[in-house]
Amino acid sequence: MKNTPAHLDILDSHSLATASLENLYRIFTVPEAPNSTLGAIDKEISDNLMGFLTDRIVARERSLKAIEADFSGSQIPEVPQFVSDYTDFVLEKLVAQSVHTAAPGFIGHMATPLPYFMLPLSRIMVALNQNLVKIETSKAFTPLERQVLGMLHGMVYEQSDEFYAENLHNSERALGSFCSGGTTANITALWVARNRMFRPTEGFQGLAKEGIAAAMAHANYDRLAIVVSERGHYSLSKAADVLGIGRNNVISVPTDASSKISLDALRATCAELTANGTGIVSIVGIAGATETGQVDPLTEMAAVAQEFGTHFHVDAAWGGPTLLSNTYKHILKGIELADSVTIDAHKQLYVPMGAGMVVFKNPSALGAVEHHAEYILRAGSKDLGQYSIEGSRPGMAMLVHAAFHIIGRKGYEIIIDQNVQKAKTFARMIAAHPDFELITDPELNILNYRYVPAAVQAKLAAVDTEAQKVINDVLDRANRRMQKQQRAAGKTFVSRTRFSQHRYGGQPVSVFRVVMANPMTTLETLQIILDEQVELAGREGTKAILAEIPLES
Amino acid sequence: MKNTPAHLDILDSHSLATASLENLYRIFTVPEAPNSTLGAIDKEISDNLMGFLTDRIVARERSLKAIEADFSGSQIPEVPQFVSDYTDFVLEKLVAQSVHTAAPGFIGHMATPLPYFMLPLSRIMVALNQNLVKIETSKAFTPLERQVLGMLHGMVYEQSDEFYAENLHNSERALGSFCSGGTTANITALWVARNRMFRPTEGFQGLAKEGIAAAMAHANYDRLAIVVSERGHYSLSKAADVLGIGRNNVISVPTDASSKISLDALRATCAELTANGTGIVSIVGIAGATETGQVDPLTEMAAVAQEFGTHFHVDAAWGGPTLLSNTYKHILKGIELADSVTIDAHKQLYVPMGAGMVVFKNPSALGAVEHHAEYILRAGSKDLGQYSIEGSRPGMAMLVHAAFHIIGRKGYEIIIDQNVQKAKTFARMIAAHPDFELITDPELNILNYRYVPAAVQAKLAAVDTEAQKVINDVLDRANRRMQKQQRAAGKTFVSRTRFSQHRYGGQPVSVFRVVMANPMTTLETLQIILDEQVELAGREGTKAILAEIPLES
Repeated sequence: MKNTPAHLDILDSHSLATASLENLYRIFTVPEAPNSTLGAIDKEISDNLMGFLTDRIVARERSLKAIEADFSGSQIPEVPQFVSDYTDFVLEKLVAQSVHTAAPGFIGHMATPLPYFMLPLSRIMVALNQNLVKIETSKAFTPLERQVLGMLHGMVYEQSDEFYAENLHNSERALGSFCSGGTTANITALWVARNRMFRPTEGFQGLAKEGIAAAMAHANYDRLAIVVSERGHYSLSKAADVLGIGRNNVISVPTDASSKISLDALRATCAELTANGTGIVSIVGIAGATETGQVDPLTEMAAVAQEFGTHFHVDAAWGGPTLLSNTYKHILKGIELADSVTIDAHKQLYVPMGAGMVVFKNPSALGAVEHHAEYILRAGSKDLGQYSIEGSRPGMAMLVHAAFHIIGRKGYEIIIDQNVQKAKTFARMIAAHPDFELITDPELNILNYRYVPAAVQAKLAAVDTEAQKVINDVLDRANRRMQKQQRAAGKTFVSRTRFSQHRYGGQPVSVFRVVMANPMTTLETLQIILDEQVELAGREGTKAILAEIPLES
Repeated sequence: MKNTPAHLDILDSHSLATASLENLYRIFTVPEAPNSTLGAIDKEISDNLMGFLTDRIVARERSLKAIEADFSGSQIPEVPQFVSDYTDFVLEKLVAQSVHTAAPGFIGHMATPLPYFMLPLSRIMVALNQNLVKIETSKAFTPLERQVLGMLHGMVYEQSDEFYAENLHNSERALGSFCSGGTTANITALWVARNRMFRPTEGFQGLAKEGIAAAMAHANYDRLAIVVSERGHYSLSKAADVLGIGRNNVISVPTDASSKISLDALRATCAELTANGTGIVSIVGIAGATETGQVDPLTEMAAVAQEFGTHFHVDAAWGGPTLLSNTYKHILKGIELADSVTIDAHKQLYVPMGAGMVVFKNPSALGAVEHHAEYILRAGSKDLGQYSIEGSRPGMAMLVHAAFHIIGRKGYEIIIDQNVQKAKTFARMIAAHPDFELITDPELNILNYRYVPAAVQAKLAAVDTEAQKVINDVLDRANRRMQKQQRAAGKTFVSRTRFSQHRYGGQPVSVFRVVMANPMTTLETLQIILDEQVELAGREGTKAILAEIPLES
């Protein structure tokens, strides 16, 4: 590939070795040549994104060990490489061995395909290379980000026009914080909740300044806790660790048969914690559980939070955009009572990876984590970096702004309604099949099921919990094996998880997990996935495992 | 612009209003039309990035209030908008009103221009839309990210080939964590330091699980502290807040005349803290201070950290890449003794915004913050999400990988040497000018100065500290005014900050801050900046302020 145009392959290693400044400047100034290797790829993606992904990503899995061999050097290369050579490497070793997360049959994780306009708009964003930490390096991007957060706030809280007119661009207020993802959004929400619980008072400068231990001593708490159902996302435990609360102090409340938090158990947990001198930093409700897609009873949870005088956070990283559908928004009823809400844009808003947000009902709440510096973020400025856990940040808000305008609420409604309806249809297909067990009937667009031959289903129904456990252990091995083989085959992908089942006396079992978010996934795709699983179940290894189940006893 | 090709403007609002699924699918599948508005912009950026930025960004500042009016709606638009209309809006209201951070005269912040190949490579990254939290959604990107972290580890610690062969792709180890930026990298480093200080022992499950208060009670500490010079980045205070240590417990150590930490003061501070029952979570050294660019005496600081048995972190977010220059790497000597080091790729590695890293000398250190979940990040996996503060993350590591290969160590050396030499030359230009005072002689490529007319310089030298303070207060107002006017004029940009000056008995003064990182900045550009400042100083308002200084007394 050495015969690509000279003006693309500017980094002639010899001239750089002799410190040619001229060659160096050119990497910042030369145009991209459309007939070069990299230029051709660029055009290929522009012309046909889905085609690029389908053609360039090799479907069949190569062993991780083999892939690792291509990324094994630990020294930064001494001599510059030709751009065309590097592009060849990227195509062969990286692109070919990446994951086609936008494939219609890839329904195992919260990955979504991108609307085509995201690519040229991303290019504008990258080209401008703004830094959202402060207005001096972002100018119009700062009001834009404030507007995007305001729109999300409006979607959740539906405050008056006067409220937004007063708060949207007010340097003393912030309606939310733009984050790199849902995890940092959840950490931010709980950071605010923790700091607001221990505000400055006479003789105490507040937790932000004095730290947790001093705050707890001041307020006479033995322990702090975060309360969430057993379906809470792992980022909440991570937040408890980061924030100094401790992972053990994320108190897991049991769920009912439909995977929603048990309100009685929640109330009992809070009462017990309070009686024992534990301060509750936040009750967390879930709107679209990562594993099962369920939505907690938010209205009732908000009442419990109020009863115990604690912050109510809702993790709607997945389910939040359901509010854009007039058909299904009622499922999230009560979310408007939350003190803070996390929503990911790189999930159901179809924005590229790296866009999470948290909004706060009270536009002064983020003041609890406000910070300043002499060279930027001076007090009274509108710099959004005053309220964010991150410092320098890219202009991702632009892509959310674009999606809101180009797709519009109506566009999102169509997508969301389709996804939910497809999940419900898939659930019916699973339930109707003799050899599958539907584990989670989808409330939104996530569901769980597993392979259980009809005879085993009958057996499970007939035996006691102890015998069920023996059978479920075997089924776990079979289902895990099938999931791994399906992933390795590379045609389709469902993920797997493991959680306790009411129907089996609380035993945890391994199940397939399906996330329905790709508009290109058709009923035919879903049928292919089930057929492939039936085929995998019939293969020697899995058959041998399943044969361990004693059907004749 | 309604006459753009129909297949680009697929989102006909009427058909979406009647819920046309067909139109919806097309936003995920249609190609981008090169002769459409958005396609034309895309091509314009590809053909000439610098031209696009220069032509499309309007140089003269519009008031923030006027810009805010364009971003004032708080409702997500109901009806989808034509892509071409939205693109027009983006060009007129967003791009035109953003900041040309890549302009040769924009030398006020840590913003760098992008090598042209970053744009098509970013497009590949966005198109693939991998999620680095786990291998199932990133495959080859995970070994790639591990390699990039290994290369950075190698740059800092220069361990043996055997070391990297054993650790690079080892599921039980992690050489570092890829973050969205330097702030999250610093938080991660201190999170690890804090948790490792309180590891599980008999009868104590460790801070990660039990929280700070229990950990401090267990180890009998009254207080925890982080020790850093007064030039520490504000992210360290933010980290102390987030981690529950408290902002007041970031102990600020005085610097010497050259803005480096005073070692005597550091040792005295640590001794006093220890004597008072305070646990030192980490001593933090600075390699390239945000405001002044100085590098602390790292070797000696490492010895102090060892003496007091504490974690030694080096914040090299800015200065780290200096290690790629054989000419200047000696300035960072001792960095290899650090337990952890933060380096930003979106600064002096010339990667787009959103790429920070932290590396740990001990490849098991990140085990202190390891976390798992049932549906991903299972124990024993190589998923990098086990060790990161963030969850879902984009494949930014690819762009660092690309830069390492295409620019190479030698290429970086040329860029870095040029930047340092240019900063030194600019310092000489300032020192030689009668009406400027050089405040910080650059050690790397950041410097500070201010406008002080020759006569005032003479006066300052002749009076006592109290009289100096009166004069400096007036100079502060004049310099702040000049900096704001220069920014508003939009031709060039230097930033400003404020810190205490040894030469004026520790008085804080406002100064210009210059960051030399744009290879296109020439000596001519620098002369233009000084000339513009002289011109601004001569304008009525500033002249009136400066006239307040009593020169005849």
